[in-house]
Amino acid sequence: MYKTESYLNKLRESSMNTYPLINPHTREKIMDIPECSNDQMVAAIANSKRAFHKMKALSSEERSLILDKASDIIAQNKDDFAKTITLESGKPIRFSLGEVDRTVQTLKFASLEARKLEGESIRLDAATNGEGRDAYTIYQPIGVVGAITPFNFPLNLVTHKVGPALGVGNTIIVKPAEKTPLSAIKLAEVLTEAGLPKDAYQVITGDGPRLGKVLIDHSDVQKISFTGSPQVGKMIKSQAGLKKITLELGNNSALYIDKSVSHKLKEIAEKAVVGAFSYNGQVCISTQRIYVHEEVRKEFLHYFKEATESLTYGDPNDPATDLSGVIDEKSQNRILAWIEEAVAEGSELVTGGKKFENGISPTILVKVSPEAKISCNEVFGPVVLVNSVTSAEDALKEMNNSPYGLNAGAFTYDLPQAFKLAHELEVGQVLINDLPTLRFDHMPYGGLKSSGYGYEGIKYAMREMAHMKFISMNYSF
Amino acid sequence: MYKTESYLNKLRESSMNTYPLINPHTREKIMDIPECSNDQMVAAIANSKRAFHKMKALSSEERSLILDKASDIIAQNKDDFAKTITLESGKPIRFSLGEVDRTVQTLKFASLEARKLEGESIRLDAATNGEGRDAYTIYQPIGVVGAITPFNFPLNLVTHKVGPALGVGNTIIVKPAEKTPLSAIKLAEVLTEAGLPKDAYQVITGDGPRLGKVLIDHSDVQKISFTGSPQVGKMIKSQAGLKKITLELGNNSALYIDKSVSHKLKEIAEKAVVGAFSYNGQVCISTQRIYVHEEVRKEFLHYFKEATESLTYGDPNDPATDLSGVIDEKSQNRILAWIEEAVAEGSELVTGGKKFENGISPTILVKVSPEAKISCNEVFGPVVLVNSVTSAEDALKEMNNSPYGLNAGAFTYDLPQAFKLAHELEVGQVLINDLPTLRFDHMPYGGLKSSGYGYEGIKYAMREMAHMKFISMNYSF
Amino acid sequence: MYKTESYLNKLRESSMNTYPLINPHTREKIMDIPECSNDQMVAAIANSKRAFHKMKALSSEERSLILDKASDIIAQNKDDFAKTITLESGKPIRFSLGEVDRTVQTLKFASLEARKLEGESIRLDAATNGEGRDAYTIYQPIGVVGAITPFNFPLNLVTHKVGPALGVGNTIIVKPAEKTPLSAIKLAEVLTEAGLPKDAYQVITGDGPRLGKVLIDHSDVQKISFTGSPQVGKMIKSQAGLKKITLELGNNSALYIDKSVSHKLKEIAEKAVVGAFSYNGQVCISTQRIYVHEEVRKEFLHYFKEATESLTYGDPNDPATDLSGVIDEKSQNRILAWIEEAVAEGSELVTGGKKFENGISPTILVKVSPEAKISCNEVFGPVVLVNSVTSAEDALKEMNNSPYGLNAGAFTYDLPQAFKLAHELEVGQVLINDLPTLRFDHMPYGGLKSSGYGYEGIKYAMREMAHMKFISMNYSF
Amino acid sequence: MYKTESYLNKLRESSMNTYPLINPHTREKIMDIPECSNDQMVAAIANSKRAFHKMKALSSEERSLILDKASDIIAQNKDDFAKTITLESGKPIRFSLGEVDRTVQTLKFASLEARKLEGESIRLDAATNGEGRDAYTIYQPIGVVGAITPFNFPLNLVTHKVGPALGVGNTIIVKPAEKTPLSAIKLAEVLTEAGLPKDAYQVITGDGPRLGKVLIDHSDVQKISFTGSPQVGKMIKSQAGLKKITLELGNNSALYIDKSVSHKLKEIAEKAVVGAFSYNGQVCISTQRIYVHEEVRKEFLHYFKEATESLTYGDPNDPATDLSGVIDEKSQNRILAWIEEAVAEGSELVTGGKKFENGISPTILVKVSPEAKISCNEVFGPVVLVNSVTSAEDALKEMNNSPYGLNAGAFTYDLPQAFKLAHELEVGQVLINDLPTLRFDHMPYGGLKSSGYGYEGIKYAMREMAHMKFISMNYSF
Repeated sequence: MYKTESYLNKLRESSMNTYPLINPHTREKIMDIPECSNDQMVAAIANSKRAFHKMKALSSEERSLILDKASDIIAQNKDDFAKTITLESGKPIRFSLGEVDRTVQTLKFASLEARKLEGESIRLDAATNGEGRDAYTIYQPIGVVGAITPFNFPLNLVTHKVGPALGVGNTIIVKPAEKTPLSAIKLAEVLTEAGLPKDAYQVITGDGPRLGKVLIDHSDVQKISFTGSPQVGKMIKSQAGLKKITLELGNNSALYIDKSVSHKLKEIAEKAVVGAFSYNGQVCISTQRIYVHEEVRKEFLHYFKEATESLTYGDPNDPATDLSGVIDEKSQNRILAWIEEAVAEGSELVTGGKKFENGISPTILVKVSPEAKISCNEVFGPVVLVNSVTSAEDALKEMNNSPYGLNAGAFTYDLPQAFKLAHELEVGQVLINDLPTLRFDHMPYGGLKSSGYGYEGIKYAMREMAHMKFISMNYSF
Repeated sequence: MYKTESYLNKLRESSMNTYPLINPHTREKIMDIPECSNDQMVAAIANSKRAFHKMKALSSEERSLILDKASDIIAQNKDDFAKTITLESGKPIRFSLGEVDRTVQTLKFASLEARKLEGESIRLDAATNGEGRDAYTIYQPIGVVGAITPFNFPLNLVTHKVGPALGVGNTIIVKPAEKTPLSAIKLAEVLTEAGLPKDAYQVITGDGPRLGKVLIDHSDVQKISFTGSPQVGKMIKSQAGLKKITLELGNNSALYIDKSVSHKLKEIAEKAVVGAFSYNGQVCISTQRIYVHEEVRKEFLHYFKEATESLTYGDPNDPATDLSGVIDEKSQNRILAWIEEAVAEGSELVTGGKKFENGISPTILVKVSPEAKISCNEVFGPVVLVNSVTSAEDALKEMNNSPYGLNAGAFTYDLPQAFKLAHELEVGQVLINDLPTLRFDHMPYGGLKSSGYGYEGIKYAMREMAHMKFISMNYSF
Repeated sequence: MYKTESYLNKLRESSMNTYPLINPHTREKIMDIPECSNDQMVAAIANSKRAFHKMKALSSEERSLILDKASDIIAQNKDDFAKTITLESGKPIRFSLGEVDRTVQTLKFASLEARKLEGESIRLDAATNGEGRDAYTIYQPIGVVGAITPFNFPLNLVTHKVGPALGVGNTIIVKPAEKTPLSAIKLAEVLTEAGLPKDAYQVITGDGPRLGKVLIDHSDVQKISFTGSPQVGKMIKSQAGLKKITLELGNNSALYIDKSVSHKLKEIAEKAVVGAFSYNGQVCISTQRIYVHEEVRKEFLHYFKEATESLTYGDPNDPATDLSGVIDEKSQNRILAWIEEAVAEGSELVTGGKKFENGISPTILVKVSPEAKISCNEVFGPVVLVNSVTSAEDALKEMNNSPYGLNAGAFTYDLPQAFKLAHELEVGQVLINDLPTLRFDHMPYGGLKSSGYGYEGIKYAMREMAHMKFISMNYSF
Repeated sequence: MYKTESYLNKLRESSMNTYPLINPHTREKIMDIPECSNDQMVAAIANSKRAFHKMKALSSEERSLILDKASDIIAQNKDDFAKTITLESGKPIRFSLGEVDRTVQTLKFASLEARKLEGESIRLDAATNGEGRDAYTIYQPIGVVGAITPFNFPLNLVTHKVGPALGVGNTIIVKPAEKTPLSAIKLAEVLTEAGLPKDAYQVITGDGPRLGKVLIDHSDVQKISFTGSPQVGKMIKSQAGLKKITLELGNNSALYIDKSVSHKLKEIAEKAVVGAFSYNGQVCISTQRIYVHEEVRKEFLHYFKEATESLTYGDPNDPATDLSGVIDEKSQNRILAWIEEAVAEGSELVTGGKKFENGISPTILVKVSPEAKISCNEVFGPVVLVNSVTSAEDALKEMNNSPYGLNAGAFTYDLPQAFKLAHELEVGQVLINDLPTLRFDHMPYGGLKSSGYGYEGIKYAMREMAHMKFISMNYSF
C-alpha cells in the first residue's frame, strides 16, 4: 500500500494551515491537507534546482529505467491506486481502474521516449559557404518545471506532466488540484521507490492561484505546464514572461453521426453514453454536443435514451456504479442552472436534468440553441445535447461554432465525407469512427482556439519541455 | 533545340557498329545509333570515377542549383523534348507532353531533396556506458551508379535515376533502352548546359545484356539501378555481388470498383480508359485487371466499352491521337497471341482484340481466368480484363492472386472497406479512389513479390544511392 | 527597378499623416512615409483574412513555385535591392549585397520547405485498444500572421517571416521598422509579380507600438512573429492571449579563442573584425564579447587591433566602405555613453571609442567588467570587448554570465573542449570554429533566456506558423 | 535454469543424425546435437508461416510487452545464460556476462522500437494534381525471416535478428552456428515463457550450408539475415532471388592513435588490449590493425606490450580469465600459419605468436605489410598489428587499404583531423576516441565494401525486415 501520510507530514512541518479534503460523493471529510505557504513553494523550487544537477547527470537509459520501474510498480498496485482516485475524486471505481491502466502506459511511453529524444543532422552545405561543417541538434533538459493539474484525472494527468519532465532530465513541482492531492503524492512515493533522485519530483499542496503565482513568478522555473480553464490559462501565459508554456484548457466536444452508419446506431449510442457520462462528464473531452443526421436521429435518440436511463448511480467503490456525486455543490448548482437556462430558452429535456443526491441525473437535451451555455461553454457535468442536422456540411458548421477546438469525432462510413470533416474541423484532433472522448496517451494532443497552447502526448510534451540546441563543428577552418 | 548528334558522334568515334533506330509507329528507320563496345563502357566507368571527385567536391546547394536549372531548361523546351519522346517511342504527343511535365517535376524534386539529404542525431546514452558522446548519421555519395532503363518513359524514367544519383553527389552511366536512346542523350545535353561537371552523367548506347553485364561486373560501379523485366532483374541481383541494387520490375495492375461508387461509374470508366490504354498500355502500372462489383458491372462495362471505342488511333504527333503503333512487331504478335489464348480458354472479347496497322485495337476481355497470361503476366499492351466480383473480399483475393505487387487501386466510398483493402493488398502502393496507374514522382514507389527490390521516388531513391555513415565523437575520453 | 511609390501611394490614400524617412548615414531626408492609421491596419487584417481563402486553396507546389520565382526575381535584381537596403539602413553596399544573396536563399528554402511540410504516421496500436486505426498528422495553415520586423536586415529578416508564412499557406502583414520600410515593400512588389494572391502579403508602415498593438489585440490574427528587443518581446507575449508567438530578441554574442589555435590567430582576428564591425555592429548576433586564452591574448589583440584600424569609414554606396553612420543620433549617443561608462569603471580602450561623423570609430575595449553595459547588454554598435581568460572553463563561465542566450562561438582545435563548450554554453546555437555572428538561413535559430521564444530558420519557423493536426481513422468499427 | 533438453528432444524426434557439440576450451564433448534434416527445415517454415498469422494479429503493444518480458527474464537469469555462452563458445565468463547484459538491452530496444515503427505522412500536393488526397506510409510485417548466425556471440547476435523480426510482427527461424546452438535455444525458451506465440521463433540445428540453402530457396521465406563470412554472404545474395537480404560480414578493424593524445597512451593501450584480445579476438570488429603516429609509437607499444603480457589464459569459467582456447583446431592452425607467413615476409613479433594449450598467446606484430593476410584478411584470433605512420593522412590511407569497411576508430584530440577521418574513412561507422571494437546495440551498424549489405541495429534492422507501404486516400473524387 502506497501511503501519503509521511509525505503530507513533511509538508505539514512547514505549513501553518490545513484545509479539509472532502469525498465528493459523500461530501464527508477525508483528512486535513497542508495548506502550504509561499515559502514552502520557494523552498521546493530551490530543492528542485539542486535536484536538477542529479537528473542531468543521469543517462537517458537510467531515466528510462526509473520510469519503467515506476510503471511496473503502479501496475502491481492497481487496486490501491484506483481506490485512492475514487476516494478523492468520487470517480466510479471502474473508471479509476481504467485511469490506472492508462497511467501505467503513460509512464511506459515516457520511459521509451526518454531514449528516443533525438535530433537531426543538418546539411549546412545546402546554404552558400556552409560546407566543411557537421551540424546537428540535440535536446537538453531545461531545469525546473512547474505543473498545475486538475481534479478529474488526479493520477494520469499528473503523470502526463511528470513523465515527460523526468524523461527529458528535468525536475518538476506539481501543484495538484486542491480537491485531489493524494494520487499525485502516491506517484511521488512510487518514483522514489523506483530510484528517482530526491526532490526531482515534488508535490506542494494548497491554494492554486496563490501557489501557482509563486511558480509563475520565480526566475528558476523554466516552464509552466497547466491543465485547467481557459481563463486561468490565458492569465498564466500573460504573466509568465519568456518561460516556456503549455496549456491544456477546456473543450465542448462535438460528435457527428452520419446516416451512412444507420446500421450501427445502437452500438454508437452505447459508446456515446460512455463518452457523455463517464465520471459524470467531468472529463476535458467529454462528449457534450452530438449532431445526428435527421434521417437517423429518431432511432439514435431511442437507443441513446435507453442506454442513458439504464445507468446506475451509487457508491463509486461499487464496480457496478456508473454515476456518482459531482465534484462539489457549487458545480452541481452551476450545471443545474445551465440546464434550466437551456430549457427556458427552448431546449427540450429528453431525460435527466435533476439533482440526485450529490450528483445530477444523466441529462439529454434536444433542440439546444448554439448560444445556450450548455452548448458553447464547457459543462463538465453529465449533460449532453443531441441536435439534428441535415447534412455533414451542416454538422461541420455547428461543430465549428465553438470557442473551443480540442477533439472532435464523427461516425461515418462515407469516405470523402470523413476526410473532409477531418480536414475542416477546427480542432487539434479528429477521430473518425471514434468518440471525441478518446485519447491515447502517446498521441499528440493540443487544442486550437481557447482550448490551449502547445501539445501534450508524451513525445510531444517532451519536446516542449526540452531545449533543442544546434551544434555546428567547422572542421575545415 | 537540344540535338543529339554531337553526343552520338562522340560515341561513334570508338564504336565499330551501329544499329538502326526505328520509329515504332511507322516502323521506318530514324537514324543509326552507335553500338558501343564493351571497351567504351569500361572507359565510361573510368571517366565516371574521375568525375566523381568533382561531384563530391560540390556542395549540395551547387548540385541542387544544377538540377534546378536543368528542370527550367526542359520546361522551356517542352515541345522539343515531347517530340523526341514521340519520335523514338511512338508515344502520342499528348502523353509525351505529360512525360515532359513530369520530368520537370522529377528534376525539381531531385533539386530540393539534394539539400534535404540529412541524417539524425543518435542518443548513445540510451545504451549502457554510451554517455559522453555526440553521434549522428550523414549520407555520403557512393561513386559510380550504373543505370539500365526501359523504352516506355525514355525521359522520365531515366531522370528518376539520374536526378537522385546526381543530387546525392554520385556520377551515373545510363544504358538506355536500345529503342529509345535519344531522350537520355538530350537530358545529358541539358545537364551539361546547366553546369554539370563533365562525365558526371554519361549515356552509352547499344545492346542491353552485353553492356549491362560490363556495368554489373565492374568493381568501380557501386550500384545498379534497373527498370525492366523480373527475369532480368533477378539475374542482375544474382550477379551483382555486394553492389547496391534497386530493381523496378513489372506489374499487372489491378483495380477494384465497388458498388458504393455506383453514382460515379461514367467518370471512373473514363479514367480507367486512360489507365488501360495510355501509350497502348505500355506503362509499368497500366491498368490491366479490373474487378467490378457485380451490382455495378453492367453499367460500368457499358461506359467503359463506349469510352474505349471512342479512342482514336493515328499519327502520334497529332494531339488528338490516343493510340498508335506498339513498340515492335514482336510485341504486337505476342499481345495478339495472349488475347487469342485467353479467348480460346473461355474469355469473352467485348471490344478490340485485333491488329490495326502497327498497333492493336484497344481490347476489353471479360470472364478471364486467373491463369490466362493476359491476367497473370504483364501484358504491356492495350488490353484490359473486366471481371465481376461479389464483394470487396472477393476482389481482394483476385487482386492478390498475382506474382506481382507494385500498385493497386480501388474506387470506393466505403471507409472501412477502403482501409482494409489498403492494408491487405499485397502491393507497395495502394491508391484509393485513383487508378493503380497513378504515380507522383516524389512518392515512394517500390514493388513486392516479383515487382522489384527497393524503392524509387526521389527521396527514397537517394537513400538507396547513398551511404548512411554513423559518426560518434567521444568527448569524455 | 522595383519601385515602392505605387505601394506607398495606396497606403497614403487612407493615412492622414506621414513621417520623414531619414538616410542614417547622411541624416538627410529620403522621402515621406505614410503613418498608417489603426483603421488601416484593421482593414489590412480583413483583407488578409479574405486572402487566406485563396492561399489555402493553392497547392503546396503552387506556393513553392511562387516563392521560387520571387527568389529568381530578386537574384536578377540584386543591385537594385542592395541599393535600397543601403539607402534606408545606411548599410555598406558590400553587406547589402550579401543580404540580398541571403534573401535569395531564404526564399529558396521557403520554396522547398513548402513542399516538405509533412507529418508522421502514428502507430495507435502501441497503446491498449488502439488497433484498427490509421492515424497521422498533417500541417494546416493557421490564417493571418502579424509580423513586426527590425531595421537591421530590412529585407532578409522580413523574408524570414514572409517566406515561411506564405510557404505554409498563411497570409501575413508586416509592420516593418519605421526606419526601413522600403525593402519590405519591394518584396511585396516582387511577390505580386511572382503570382502571389492579392493581399496575401501586406505592408503597413508607421509607428510600431501603436500598430503592433492592433495586430496583437485583433482576434483574426493567429500569430505574432516579432524580432526586436526583449522588453517589447515580453510585452507582446503578455498581451497576445492564446495567439501563437515567436520572438527573436537580442544577444551579446560571445566568442572564445583557445590556445590550441595559436597558429591561426591572424585569420581569426580578421574574421572577428567582420563579426564585430559589419554594419557597425548593428546585427543581432554581432560579436560583442571575445574571451581569449591568456597565452594567445597578446598576439590576437595585435592582429585584431591592426585589422580594426584598417577599416574604412565612408559612403555606404562605395564598395570599399566598411563602416558608416549608425542608425540614428540617439543610438550614437547611447553607444558612446556606454563606452565612457566602461572606461570610467576601469576598462581600457585599445582603439576607437570616438564619434566620427554620424558613426562611431570601431572600438575595442579590454579588461571590461561583466557588469559594464558594454558587456551585459546588447550594444548594437561597433564595440567589442576582448577579455583574457585562463582556461576554457573560465571562458565558459564568462560567456554564460549573460541575460542572453542566442548564438555563441569558439575557435578551438581541442576536441573534448569543443564538445564540452557546445554542450554547456547556455545558448540556442553553438558554432565551433566559426564566429557567433554566423547564421545560415535554413538552420534552426532560437534564443534561450532573454533572447527569445521559439525558433526561426525556415523549416522551424514554418512549424511554428502551422497547426499540426492529428487525424485518426478507425476502420475496424 | 533455462534448459535446452526439451527443445533438443523435439528436434531429435524428426532428425536422423546428431553431431557432437565440443567445448572449445577443453575440446571435450558437451552433448550430441540433432543434425536436422532438410524436411525439418521445410516443416519449420510451414510452422513459421502459420505462426505469422498469430504474430500479425498482435498489436505492437503486445509484441513490445513480450520482448520486454523476455528482457526481464534474461536479466534475472544472467548467470545461467552467461554460463551457457561460456560452455559452448569458450568465451571467458566476464565477457559472457557482458554479452548477456547487452542482450538484455537488445531486447529492450526491440521492445521500444516495436512501438515506434512509424511512417510519415506525405504531401501529394507537392506534385501537380496531387491535391485532395491524404497519403502516408506504414510498416507491415513481411512473414517468415530466415536467420543464419555465427558462433562468436551466440546469444546477442541471435537476438539482433530475433528481436527486430518479432518486434515488427514477423516470425523467424534461426539456423545457429553448429558450434553454439544452445544459447539460441535458451532464448526460444525465454520467449515462450514471455508469451510469444508458438513457432514464431524456431531454432533448427545442424549443417549451415545445407540447411541455409533450404531457407534461401524456399518461396515462403521473405528475408535472409546472415552474419558470417563475405564468401558465404555473396553466395547468399546471388541465390536469394528477390528475397530481402541483410548481410553482416567481416572486418579487419583499424585504429589510429594520434600524437595529440600523447598524454593518454597508457589508458589507450589498456583499452586496445581489450579491443584486440577479448574472446581471443573472435569478434567481428576486433581491433586488428593499429596505426600509431611515429612520435608516440614507442611509448604506446611499451604500454600495449605490458598490458598484453599481463593477460591471463585459463578456464573460461574463472572470472579472472582473459584468454582461452580458440574455437577449434582448424582455426588455431590457420591463425598460427598467418602469423608465420607475416613473420616470414618481414613482420616482427613483439610478443605472443605461439600455440598455448588450445589457444594462442596474444600476439603483437609490427612492421606488417598491407599484403600480409594478418593485415588484409579478417584474423578472428588474438593477433594485432601495430604499424607506425607519419601523419593522420598516412593512417587514413593505410586504414582504407582494406577490402573491408565496417567500423574504424581513432584516438585524437585534434578536432579537424577527427572530422576529416570521420568523413574519409571508408567504413560504415567511425568512432572517434573509442575503439573500432565498440558497438552499441541501438546504433546503425552496416558495412561497406566486403563487410556487408544493409544495416543492423534494432531500429535499422526493423526497417529492413518490414514492408514500407504507401497508402493514398483520394477524398476529392
